[in-house]
Amino acid sequence: MDREFSQQERDAMPTEKLQTVVILSGGLDSTTLLYELLDAGHEVKALSFNYGQRHDRELEAAKTLARLTGVEHRTVDISGLSALFGANALTDLSVAVPHGEYTPATIAVTMVPNRNMIMLSIAAGWAVSLKFPSIAFGAHAGSYTPYPDCQPSFVAAMNCATQLCDFHAITVLAPFVDWHKAEIVRRGQALGVPFELTWSCYQGANLHCGKCSTCLDRRAAFAECGLIDPVPYQS
Amino acid sequence: MDREFSQQERDAMPTEKLQTVVILSGGLDSTTLLYELLDAGHEVKALSFNYGQRHDRELEAAKTLARLTGVEHRTVDISGLSALFGANALTDLSVAVPHGEYTPATIAVTMVPNRNMIMLSIAAGWAVSLKFPSIAFGAHAGSYTPYPDCQPSFVAAMNCATQLCDFHAITVLAPFVDWHKAEIVRRGQALGVPFELTWSCYQGANLHCGKCSTCLDRRAAFAECGLIDPVPYQS
Repeated sequence: MDREFSQQERDAMPTEKLQTVVILSGGLDSTTLLYELLDAGHEVKALSFNYGQRHDRELEAAKTLARLTGVEHRTVDISGLSALFGANALTDLSVAVPHGEYTPATIAVTMVPNRNMIMLSIAAGWAVSLKFPSIAFGAHAGSYTPYPDCQPSFVAAMNCATQLCDFHAITVLAPFVDWHKAEIVRRGQALGVPFELTWSCYQGANLHCGKCSTCLDRRAAFAECGLIDPVPYQS
Repeated sequence: MDREFSQQERDAMPTEKLQTVVILSGGLDSTTLLYELLDAGHEVKALSFNYGQRHDRELEAAKTLARLTGVEHRTVDISGLSALFGANALTDLSVAVPHGEYTPATIAVTMVPNRNMIMLSIAAGWAVSLKFPSIAFGAHAGSYTPYPDCQPSFVAAMNCATQLCDFHAITVLAPFVDWHKAEIVRRGQALGVPFELTWSCYQGANLHCGKCSTCLDRRAAFAECGLIDPVPYQS
């Protein structure tokens, strides 16, 4: 006798849902991730953070990119945290943004303590309330970014925690975690990411400064790919 | 020849530092934890969260208890998250606080999504900036609190993540995680915790309501110990 599943049985079957909250800074990595997820067929909602950045260029870029891709976008204000963390070049206008490549000293002054865990935990909270099964962020360890909270081991540990934080499990997606930035640029190019709309610079001038660690990092990645960065630089 | 360590050598030795950021809600569990840590010789700093609670009785209690114990206390405003999470009985005055024991339905309406992970990640951020080696929270699984983010497995996963989130490892302390609430009451009694200064009720009236799940939980714990809860109840 032929067996067939009833509609009721079918409805009760687990389906792999592609619904993801992506942390969107408006920079190159997270924007490429947004395009990657959309290309893979995910229903995406985008989340940005106002952590008291010294400028809102990133947040404006995120808003523009979300609108362009037709993705719901929310910005959450966590600037109240700055009361805990003291002076920091990313949030405090009186602290100079260091020029040059990443070093332990420039990392310390450009890092909001535990920023990735804080952003992931809030993204997971939104995913809980949406009943979305996954959250994603554009971390990549590569050779240029020694930030501990961009390493595969950190992502794996967070993924364990988000599996257990609520009645429904949440998976952390970080598909670029062992990519180099140049590989992200190449992938973004293939996906048609409008790089000219992204914002990476730690400074908030009209143009990218071209001198801070994140500008140097970005320019090097485009150069490595033999591509022209469509973003104009001051220098 | 007698060997002795120079002062320089001594200074370079790792010492087990007892320095902990404790998440202090002003309730019975976190207050007992504060006293436990102080009793064990920790240098403690206390962190509370304004997540848009429907009342500030908890935060007032936390402030009073920190002052009484001479512990530095900060309150961080994360009420901006409420834009993400929609209506919730803990934050929205138009949603009634359910009476009676914890059930999946009352839990859903009284839970800020992923609250413990969010609070732990911010506490870890403060510990990073203080160079404190540990953070602590008063989670207890017991029989009455089926919240996933109060379970030992969740605490263990978060502890993995906080070991890896920064250049210095942070340990999550949750010494009550497999205790019942009555055991915490008994321990608090032994430590001389001023229970009369703690606030547990989800409502923000002058007196504890005696009817919400957390009031019922608290009263049952005192009754189980054969102790009188010094907090007055409406009913």
